[in-house]
Amino acid sequence: MSAEQTHARGYGISDTSKYTEFTVKEFKLKTPGPRDVTIAIEYCGVCGSDMHTVSGGWGPLKNDWVCPGHEIVGKVIAVGPEAADEFKIGSIAGVGAQVESCLECERCKGDNENYCPEQHDTYNDTNAAGDVLQGGYSTHIRADKRFVFNIPSAIAPQDAAPILCAGITVYSPLKRNGTGPGKLVGIVGMGGLGHFAVQFAKALGAQVVLFSHSPGKASDALRLGADKFIATGDKDFAKTAGFGAANKGREFDFILSCADSNAIPLDQFLPLLKVGGRMTTVGLPDQPFSIAGFAFAGNSAAFGGSHLGSKKEMLEMLDLAAEKNIKPIIHEVLPMSRAGDAIEGVAKNTVRYRYVLKQDLV
Amino acid sequence: MSAEQTHARGYGISDTSKYTEFTVKEFKLKTPGPRDVTIAIEYCGVCGSDMHTVSGGWGPLKNDWVCPGHEIVGKVIAVGPEAADEFKIGSIAGVGAQVESCLECERCKGDNENYCPEQHDTYNDTNAAGDVLQGGYSTHIRADKRFVFNIPSAIAPQDAAPILCAGITVYSPLKRNGTGPGKLVGIVGMGGLGHFAVQFAKALGAQVVLFSHSPGKASDALRLGADKFIATGDKDFAKTAGFGAANKGREFDFILSCADSNAIPLDQFLPLLKVGGRMTTVGLPDQPFSIAGFAFAGNSAAFGGSHLGSKKEMLEMLDLAAEKNIKPIIHEVLPMSRAGDAIEGVAKNTVRYRYVLKQDLV
Repeated sequence: MSAEQTHARGYGISDTSKYTEFTVKEFKLKTPGPRDVTIAIEYCGVCGSDMHTVSGGWGPLKNDWVCPGHEIVGKVIAVGPEAADEFKIGSIAGVGAQVESCLECERCKGDNENYCPEQHDTYNDTNAAGDVLQGGYSTHIRADKRFVFNIPSAIAPQDAAPILCAGITVYSPLKRNGTGPGKLVGIVGMGGLGHFAVQFAKALGAQVVLFSHSPGKASDALRLGADKFIATGDKDFAKTAGFGAANKGREFDFILSCADSNAIPLDQFLPLLKVGGRMTTVGLPDQPFSIAGFAFAGNSAAFGGSHLGSKKEMLEMLDLAAEKNIKPIIHEVLPMSRAGDAIEGVAKNTVRYRYVLKQDLV
Repeated sequence: MSAEQTHARGYGISDTSKYTEFTVKEFKLKTPGPRDVTIAIEYCGVCGSDMHTVSGGWGPLKNDWVCPGHEIVGKVIAVGPEAADEFKIGSIAGVGAQVESCLECERCKGDNENYCPEQHDTYNDTNAAGDVLQGGYSTHIRADKRFVFNIPSAIAPQDAAPILCAGITVYSPLKRNGTGPGKLVGIVGMGGLGHFAVQFAKALGAQVVLFSHSPGKASDALRLGADKFIATGDKDFAKTAGFGAANKGREFDFILSCADSNAIPLDQFLPLLKVGGRMTTVGLPDQPFSIAGFAFAGNSAAFGGSHLGSKKEMLEMLDLAAEKNIKPIIHEVLPMSRAGDAIEGVAKNTVRYRYVLKQDLV
C-alpha cells in the first residue's frame, strides 16, 4: 500500500430506521495532500456518537450511506512530504472525531482547532474540498497531520482507540476547568465517557466524586480512582456529595456530566458548585435540557458544553495515559462485521464500558 | 421616630389571582439588633420580581399577606450601636433585595454574602429569628448594616431606588465576567434591567451591543451608550452582531441576558461567544429554559445565572453611578397607593423602563 491508496471499504448505514444493519461498501478516500497521513485501520472504538448518528437521533444522515467510527488506530502506510517530520510509515497512529479545520483562524492558531468554525467531523460530513468523509469502521482513513496522533508504545492499539474520542472529550474540559491538586471534581455518569473521566481527573490530581444512577457501578468507579461514589437514585443524594462537616463542608470546583440523558437533575447538581462554578456536559442526548433560571441563582453557576480537544491536549493526554496506565475497560473486542451488535449494546446501555471493533475486511 | 419603631404599614397582596389589588396592613418590623439600621421609606422602585412574586409566577406566597418592594430608599431614623460607624440619623440610605445572611461562612467572609446558603430575601421570606419579612411598599424597613447602603448625595433618592436591585443585578455579573476596556459585551433585552446594563457596561469601558426584539428601543439604547443595536426579530440577527470584517470579526467576551423570557434564541446567542465564554441570565422567567446540548458545542460556551451582588460591589456601583451620572429612566413616579397600576405595567411590559413609588402612607 502507498500514498496512491484511493479507496477504502467499510461498514455503513443507509437507513436510520435499521441502524444495526450495516452493509459493506467501497468509498473514495479524501484527495491526498502534502500534509496528509494515510492509515490502514486495525481497531476502531464504538462511541455513543456512532449510535446517535446512525439511529438518526442527531438528525438525518448527511449522505446516502454513512460509515461511522472515530476512535481509529492503525498503521501508517503513507505520509505526505509536509507530514514526514512527525509520522513514519509502519508506526502506530490514530485519528479521533475531527479531521479538518481551516488551520488559519485565531482559534486554530490558538490551540482551539476543535472550535474552528470550519471544522469537519470524521464522518457524516463533507470537507471543504467536497470529499465525502467516512469513518473508521473501515479499512483506511486519510487526514491532515493536525488530526493524526502517534500512539505511545506503552498503550496497546485497541486500548488507544477509545482514548481518541472518549478520552479527549473528557480530558479537555477537565483540563480547561482547572482539574488538579486541591480541586474537588464531580463526574456524572459511569459509561464510556465517565469511566475515562474518573481516571483522568484522578491522574490530574483532583479529589473525585462519581455520581451514577447505577449503584452496581460503585466498585468499578472506586477501583478506577474515585474517592467517593454517590448513587443518584437516592432523592437526597446531593446532601452527602461533598466532604468534611456534615458532608457539605466542601464545594465542587467543577462537575463534568458524561450522562447521555437530558433527565439529570441539574437543579440538584448545580447548587453543589462553588460560586461562579461550571458544570459541563459532554453527554449530548437527543432531547434538549430543561433548566429553571433559579437553579443558577444560589451560586451563579453555569451549565455548558465542550467539544473534543486540541492536538496539544491530545498529545498531553496520550502521554498521561501512557504514564499512568489509563485505558478503557473493553467490554469485548468484536470483529468489525459485528458493528451492529456493538451499536445495539450502546443503544440499550448494556455496554461495560466500550466496544472496540477489530479489522476483518483485509 | 426612634429605634423603638416596632411596626410599619404597607401595601400588600393576599391572593395571587388578584395581584393588582393591594390592601394596606400594619406589620411588625424585625426585632432590632445592635447592627441594625431603620429607615423611614421615601421611595421604592417596582421590580419584575415584585410582579413575579405577587402574581404567583414564582410559586405560592410564603405568608398570608406579602408587601413587596426591594428597591428602597429613605431617611435613616435609628442606628444600632454597632452600625454607628457607618450610618447617621437623617442621612439617605437604601436597602435592596437581600436583608440577611449568616455573616460567618466563607461566602459571607469572601464578599459573596449574596450567595450565602442562609441568605434571606427582603420580602416574602421569614428570617432566621422567625421575623416575617416585608418589603418597601411600606413606611419603614429595618435591616442589618451589611444590607444597608448610604446613597451618594449626587444621586437623587428616586433615581437611587432602582439601582439597588436592577442596578446591582446587572453590575455584579458584568464585573465578575470581566467587563472592561477592550471587551465586547452583549446585553439582551432593554427593560428595567437592560437599560441599566447598557449604562454600566459602557461605564466599565466595554464595547456594548444591545439586542432587543423591540426595534423601537434602538434610540434609547444608543443614547444610553450602546455602540450597536441589533433587532432580534430578524431571523439572521446573529450574523451582524459583531464588529469588523463581515460583522463577524469579533467574538463576544460576555453576554448578559436581561430578558424576562425563556424564549430567547439561545442557539443563536451562545455561538457568538468566544471559546469558553459565558452567557448569564438575570431575567428569571416563570418557565424553564430549554437548551440543546449542541448549542454549546461550537465554542464550549456556558449559560448561567447570577443573584444580586455583594455590599462591596454595591458601594463600587453607587460610586460609579454617581461619577458617570447613571440613573434609571423613570416611566412615572406614582404614589404608593397606585402600586397595582405599576405592577400591571410590568406584567403587560408597557413600562419604559421603571416605575418608582413615592411614600403616601405617612
